Amino acid sequence: MEITTYLNDQRQRVEDRLAALMLDPVGDFAKHIEAMRYSLFVGGKRIRPILCLAAAEAVNSDAAVRQRALPVACALECIHTYSLIHDDLPAMDDDDLRRGKPTNHTVFGEAAAILAGDGLLTFAFDLLSSPVSAAVADPARIRIIQTVARAAGPLGMVGGQSLDMIYEGQQVGYETLRSIHRSKTGALITASVTCGAIVAGASVEQEDALKTYGDHIGLAFQIVDDLLDVEATTEQLGKPAGSDVKSDKVTYPSLFGKDISRTMAREAVQEALAALAVFDRQADPLRALANFIVDRKK
Amino acid sequence: MEITTYLNDQRQRVEDRLAALMLDPVGDFAKHIEAMRYSLFVGGKRIRPILCLAAAEAVNSDAAVRQRALPVACALECIHTYSLIHDDLPAMDDDDLRRGKPTNHTVFGEAAAILAGDGLLTFAFDLLSSPVSAAVADPARIRIIQTVARAAGPLGMVGGQSLDMIYEGQQVGYETLRSIHRSKTGALITASVTCGAIVAGASVEQEDALKTYGDHIGLAFQIVDDLLDVEATTEQLGKPAGSDVKSDKVTYPSLFGKDISRTMAREAVQEALAALAVFDRQADPLRALANFIVDRKK
Repeated sequence: MEITTYLNDQRQRVEDRLAALMLDPVGDFAKHIEAMRYSLFVGGKRIRPILCLAAAEAVNSDAAVRQRALPVACALECIHTYSLIHDDLPAMDDDDLRRGKPTNHTVFGEAAAILAGDGLLTFAFDLLSSPVSAAVADPARIRIIQTVARAAGPLGMVGGQSLDMIYEGQQVGYETLRSIHRSKTGALITASVTCGAIVAGASVEQEDALKTYGDHIGLAFQIVDDLLDVEATTEQLGKPAGSDVKSDKVTYPSLFGKDISRTMAREAVQEALAALAVFDRQADPLRALANFIVDRKK
Repeated sequence: MEITTYLNDQRQRVEDRLAALMLDPVGDFAKHIEAMRYSLFVGGKRIRPILCLAAAEAVNSDAAVRQRALPVACALECIHTYSLIHDDLPAMDDDDLRRGKPTNHTVFGEAAAILAGDGLLTFAFDLLSSPVSAAVADPARIRIIQTVARAAGPLGMVGGQSLDMIYEGQQVGYETLRSIHRSKTGALITASVTCGAIVAGASVEQEDALKTYGDHIGLAFQIVDDLLDVEATTEQLGKPAGSDVKSDKVTYPSLFGKDISRTMAREAVQEALAALAVFDRQADPLRALANFIVDRKK
């Protein structure tokens, strides 16, 4: 399959639905909503929502299922965007550039950026519980909300960001690096495919296979992120290249060198593909996504 | 009824359940969890969770119903605590004292405080969707999650805080003041009673009555907050007294004077009590709470 076309189509689907679901910047809260919208619509690969849609498709190729997964996919992107806004804050990574544009706080100020992140995080749970996602049966919705809350919470993404802050500039070992990545990046990626699986009514076996897939591509994604930070340019990345070296961060390339890191990423993708063996051709987009994640240039 | 005893009993119930539900500060994320726990267990009136429990009790006095409402009540307190942590940040109100203790960021640093708030907000939705609240039927849980997400979100509490920041130091009129309060403080208070109503299986009429009650005590609560800021001491409040005047904030006393403000608070309480006419003696705790809110000294 042609992954570029697939990604573009799915990204457009996500963008269109996000635009329809997101609040309009009118009324009393216009400025707050404007700050939320800025980061949400400034661009981005939309990997997490696309993973959600592709996982749903792997389980059930009925177009109605993918349609049902869309609001869930949008909620995942809201959570991812909130995490970027807060990670970029002066008190955190203090970054000026994200997705090729000035970061939220450089445009709207620190207070508004913190609140834009808070707003997007809360809005994600609004989407998951509102009539827009009512096509998903209530027990499945509860499981989805639980999956997202766990993945984004203190033992997941937020916890991971806190570890990242705590260990900044320290020479941590592989175990710690793995733990940071698993929580900070991996948890939401795995949750994205898991949510797609739940929407589509996956069997326990299918859901487990997709979680394994998610864990491995999460790892591959992070290793490639680390590699791109040393190999790509700021222009390519849309965020400052070389920032890991600058902030003295332990990364896969700093621990293992670039060649071994790339091999590890490829191995993780192989493991991810192996986990998909229980699926037929309907999982081809997930297979192509795994390869895309390791071959991407930004 | 003896409101002090009632409040103490309910507060203890909430504290005990919060202690049981909250994550322990062990493992990889111990420091992050410690920061969350600090603000959650530093004290506080626990008004919102108690309102949730009392609203459930007004609808159905069965002890099992109140038991079912407890995890929901705890989630509301997590959200309230997150909002205090973020409001106190240097980029926001820059306060050093809260609930009589140093604010989260003065103890743990700014990054950890932002993340502690994020963690508590996310953990609230974890509680609402986790097995600990499974005694509430799924459709009711979805409605509760929706109610909380809306109340805390961009058109509710976060939006209200953003208005508060935008209008800081500006001489806004009554309309704007009302809009800030309704969203920043009122929305979560109304949501607290609404959630209690939903847990207890309230009729539409009962739920509407409780929402009206919530709207009016939310207003009374805010007016009294403004009055206490000018009338009480820092020691009494556990947070800096006179901070509204210091930051040139428009308040009820600054717009209407203290006497009229107090009359407005009492009128709001009367409206709140009138809304409870559809309930029998089981709503007495809610009645006592309304009076407590306007008579409180901190």
